[in-house]
Amino acid sequence: MNKISFRNDYSVIAHKKIIEKLNNFKNEINTGYAEDYHTENAKKKITALIKRNSDIYFLTGGTQTNMVLISAVLRPHEAVIAASTAHINVHETGAIEGQGHKIITVNKTDGKLTVEDIKKILDNHTDCHMVKPKLVFITNATEVGTVYNKNELKDLYEFCHKNDLYLYLDGARLAVSFSACDIKLDDYAKYTDAFYIGGTKIGSPLGEALIINNKELNKDFSYLIKHFGAMLAKGFVPAICFEALFEDDLYFKLGQDQNEKASYMTKKLKEIDVKLRYESPTNQVFAMLDNEKIKELEKDFIFERWDEKTVRFVVAFHNTYDEIDLLIEKIKNN
Amino acid sequence: MNKISFRNDYSVIAHKKIIEKLNNFKNEINTGYAEDYHTENAKKKITALIKRNSDIYFLTGGTQTNMVLISAVLRPHEAVIAASTAHINVHETGAIEGQGHKIITVNKTDGKLTVEDIKKILDNHTDCHMVKPKLVFITNATEVGTVYNKNELKDLYEFCHKNDLYLYLDGARLAVSFSACDIKLDDYAKYTDAFYIGGTKIGSPLGEALIINNKELNKDFSYLIKHFGAMLAKGFVPAICFEALFEDDLYFKLGQDQNEKASYMTKKLKEIDVKLRYESPTNQVFAMLDNEKIKELEKDFIFERWDEKTVRFVVAFHNTYDEIDLLIEKIKNN
Amino acid sequence: MNKISFRNDYSVIAHKKIIEKLNNFKNEINTGYAEDYHTENAKKKITALIKRNSDIYFLTGGTQTNMVLISAVLRPHEAVIAASTAHINVHETGAIEGQGHKIITVNKTDGKLTVEDIKKILDNHTDCHMVKPKLVFITNATEVGTVYNKNELKDLYEFCHKNDLYLYLDGARLAVSFSACDIKLDDYAKYTDAFYIGGTKIGSPLGEALIINNKELNKDFSYLIKHFGAMLAKGFVPAICFEALFEDDLYFKLGQDQNEKASYMTKKLKEIDVKLRYESPTNQVFAMLDNEKIKELEKDFIFERWDEKTVRFVVAFHNTYDEIDLLIEKIKNN
Amino acid sequence: MNKISFRNDYSVIAHKKIIEKLNNFKNEINTGYAEDYHTENAKKKITALIKRNSDIYFLTGGTQTNMVLISAVLRPHEAVIAASTAHINVHETGAIEGQGHKIITVNKTDGKLTVEDIKKILDNHTDCHMVKPKLVFITNATEVGTVYNKNELKDLYEFCHKNDLYLYLDGARLAVSFSACDIKLDDYAKYTDAFYIGGTKIGSPLGEALIINNKELNKDFSYLIKHFGAMLAKGFVPAICFEALFEDDLYFKLGQDQNEKASYMTKKLKEIDVKLRYESPTNQVFAMLDNEKIKELEKDFIFERWDEKTVRFVVAFHNTYDEIDLLIEKIKNN
Repeated sequence: MNKISFRNDYSVIAHKKIIEKLNNFKNEINTGYAEDYHTENAKKKITALIKRNSDIYFLTGGTQTNMVLISAVLRPHEAVIAASTAHINVHETGAIEGQGHKIITVNKTDGKLTVEDIKKILDNHTDCHMVKPKLVFITNATEVGTVYNKNELKDLYEFCHKNDLYLYLDGARLAVSFSACDIKLDDYAKYTDAFYIGGTKIGSPLGEALIINNKELNKDFSYLIKHFGAMLAKGFVPAICFEALFEDDLYFKLGQDQNEKASYMTKKLKEIDVKLRYESPTNQVFAMLDNEKIKELEKDFIFERWDEKTVRFVVAFHNTYDEIDLLIEKIKNN
Repeated sequence: MNKISFRNDYSVIAHKKIIEKLNNFKNEINTGYAEDYHTENAKKKITALIKRNSDIYFLTGGTQTNMVLISAVLRPHEAVIAASTAHINVHETGAIEGQGHKIITVNKTDGKLTVEDIKKILDNHTDCHMVKPKLVFITNATEVGTVYNKNELKDLYEFCHKNDLYLYLDGARLAVSFSACDIKLDDYAKYTDAFYIGGTKIGSPLGEALIINNKELNKDFSYLIKHFGAMLAKGFVPAICFEALFEDDLYFKLGQDQNEKASYMTKKLKEIDVKLRYESPTNQVFAMLDNEKIKELEKDFIFERWDEKTVRFVVAFHNTYDEIDLLIEKIKNN
Repeated sequence: MNKISFRNDYSVIAHKKIIEKLNNFKNEINTGYAEDYHTENAKKKITALIKRNSDIYFLTGGTQTNMVLISAVLRPHEAVIAASTAHINVHETGAIEGQGHKIITVNKTDGKLTVEDIKKILDNHTDCHMVKPKLVFITNATEVGTVYNKNELKDLYEFCHKNDLYLYLDGARLAVSFSACDIKLDDYAKYTDAFYIGGTKIGSPLGEALIINNKELNKDFSYLIKHFGAMLAKGFVPAICFEALFEDDLYFKLGQDQNEKASYMTKKLKEIDVKLRYESPTNQVFAMLDNEKIKELEKDFIFERWDEKTVRFVVAFHNTYDEIDLLIEKIKNN
Repeated sequence: MNKISFRNDYSVIAHKKIIEKLNNFKNEINTGYAEDYHTENAKKKITALIKRNSDIYFLTGGTQTNMVLISAVLRPHEAVIAASTAHINVHETGAIEGQGHKIITVNKTDGKLTVEDIKKILDNHTDCHMVKPKLVFITNATEVGTVYNKNELKDLYEFCHKNDLYLYLDGARLAVSFSACDIKLDDYAKYTDAFYIGGTKIGSPLGEALIINNKELNKDFSYLIKHFGAMLAKGFVPAICFEALFEDDLYFKLGQDQNEKASYMTKKLKEIDVKLRYESPTNQVFAMLDNEKIKELEKDFIFERWDEKTVRFVVAFHNTYDEIDLLIEKIKNN
């Protein structure tokens, strides 16, 4: 197939720097189950960036990371609050409920929770006949490409802590949040109880780095990872990938590069009067096109339909300005 | 560290042929979630070997594979029968119970279940106040290096099917079973309802190939993989690893080579009058040594203590005859 | 306290005919765990009324019955569809999610699901990244006092069966549905896969009769009751209560009597221009009163606040026309 | 049937004093969900006896009580230690595993755990690849009629607390322990973190009183009761039963009376040279009889077969010395 893909940001095995590093260490003997020096080294790199002595674990994928963290934190009757658009609510095949926990949802078109949303839920959950809200789940960048800014994150965190709630942030696409808002990596560590730095969607073959900032949440965490079938024998594999991602700022550079390209795409789409479904400053672009145009585009490009009138273009590390120009050209000429 | 490792068979990132293949495809665009051509291709290779139109899935690790398969098959009140030594009973941090299922165990020092063992359990579980046995779990090669032969496997399978039980085989170390017993890959498919072909312990960075032979067990299986947090976004990564393992019989050659080296180690140990804890024809060698000798050995070699009087040497794909000779030399001279 | 209670329909130990029957049999030796003749007898009475050879179990309470039935039916990745107002969604402290299953909700102010609602959910749940809808949960009478009629029930059932869904009906207040709609007990058995006949809310000290009409759902059901901690040692206790309820049509007479009294209350409230929040033809009356009037009423009556502007009066078997007149008087004169 | 029953201690609806009390209050209006004055009153009576400000809840049955308490206490990876004979291990259809927790068992013929047993398990569970023992489960009287004495209980409790373990005692047959050993009700409260006072097996139609002595275990407990489907709407029903049981020492008198009768039966059996399987000082008598004699006995008596050579006679509150004499006569004359 010679079609150009804007389908998603997990279509290529790995960024070349990661493959290179795996190749370099291919004859090395390491201890299994994350007790190796690569794991230590990757943790050190992240610790330096978050400026905090958090606990760090490398897991395989996003759904798994959400499932393990949320199940480790909540007791059986406790629930997690999330936007209706949240990945855990829509696209994890009931993984959170599967481990016993209700997701209390708030209908949000922009994918972002506010203090007011959470307050209403607390006001409404007052006795033992209802679940007890205990964890707030947010995502940055969100599933619709929007971002929280630092003040919004801080407000949520402070409200949570005043109300005996934990705040957890899903960072599947954290890489593209940095150049789209004013939150730095150390802010994420400061203003959440736990969050994860996504690897899979920014050039790693697998791997998410889960950062637990609140020591209360960390008790026996390795047991829990194993219990939920999430412990890799070769824990050094994702660790090496994160070593590569945090070498020479690769992680941040890739994120910024994708945003710039997506921004270029957005600008070009607006120039040819294509309406956008969400105001996304990150690497997902939601273009509203009519059905015939979409069918025409599908001959040369790969992308997803979002809803009846919208398609989603995702800019990944391997996409080029030329590919974007070809897409714009095609849309314009149909 | 320049110590020689006989600790386990998952200490090195990957066999060079696997790294090579990952590198070859590093610029290729693929569809996520196991809908790519590598996955198709790896399935085809396995299908040809098992000579059967089974359903095949690539998961990440052994505990996860056991957890997903067993949880997919059993209803809430149903239980799995296993030897007391079974990995699911001892070393999975309660992953099976974590998804709701009791493991009924039989005390076995050789790690192998018999028809008689299962019969006794059935005779003892007769009413609704006890769990209902529904699945039999066996491992080949077992946790103590022993193997089932073809007749034993066949007997278990036939007994299970006469008694409304499913038979599932954990093949974390399936690679080393082939040259140690008379079971071929197509026999595993013929005489189990499901089994998995271990990748991690034979040179893959991750990945186990789960083979579901009984269509009853396969209903909605992709949903279940996702539900338990076990679906990789880049499903083509483990698939490529299995493509490499089943190219030019690499899988079988590696298994045979490890067994031959382990067999050499066993012979040499016997020559110097070291007693062996189990009669293992596979790549795990359980040597009984006194405590001082063990401490002396630990200066130059890495290995695990099995119990107070026994150490375990595992021969992996990267171990050499020279390393074994050095080990024997050291034991002899202490 | 001499306050008059309209708080709910489970405030009194039991109807006198039930206490009488328990007293009559107090020296009788019976077999435990529902293997006694009272259980057989109660089942026969119900079987005669539903005109169908269904499987019948006596459980303790409504949440427990919902939890056991739903968990017995659904596989891990399967979900139940319910109105947002449903008891399982709001007032069971996550019991359904606790056993691993997502509840997919539809916002409904009248508490009733339609074929159209379910159709939309099916259209939206199409791949293995989302839960698989498998069971539809409805209630009659609903949590807001409304009722389905026979055609509505039949339509739902037929749609479910065409779409590989099961239909389950929560009958916590089934007794008050009979005189409020055209569904007979045998219709419930005909047009659901399972339903329960509530005992607790119609004069039993405990006990709900779960009726499984679809044999597919009944496999090993006694095991499942025990597994979820729901099997009573003295199974003959709820059975005797149901023997009493289905003697001389007590069950239906109590339901009709409560509806007639509630209807009388409704008429009287309308006469004094009190607005009603829902059009309830059953024993729950939702009156909209201003805050001062509510506070005044609370001096002499017990009832629940439903929302800021609404109070709920529930007419139970022990309430009298005199008590209703006193209530109306009080509202009028304030 | 005119057969005499020694089958079990839950064959009769209720002791007459309990039925009487239920009848007395049959017109009383009470608040639901354990917020009534009977519940308060029953708690006060128990508090006075245990001499401690523990938290008290009335649940329905033993399996349910074990399931709720254990699931409330343990995190997902934590396990409970129990004798192999324990009810939770053998006769609860996997209820504990069903909520996610492994039971680590010790083979014990007398049904009693020792400090040494627990110590071995702790020594063997040392890393995150195994479950973490966190709760010790014992029963008094045990499933085979034996009892712990006060020193044994104290030793277990002290060992548990030195080793970060909780101690929980199943008191399904607590009533018969008092006259068989030196433990008083306040000792149970002093030397356990939680225990339950069985009602069902001592004349209550249903109901077990769960006593939580360690405040750490009590957090949000009402939520957990509801979450596991164990909250009765008419919470005052079991409360009234316990009010009756703790009036005029009925509970203790019934227990002592049953033990005395069982002791009489034991003496008489020994006189006619019948061997006993266990040395039980409580209301269960395990007689070893040959198969023909058993068949002969079954014509006039109801009892359970324990194993191939043993039958169990249980003395309940309604059994008489005459019935015992008839049994002995029959055994002697066959």
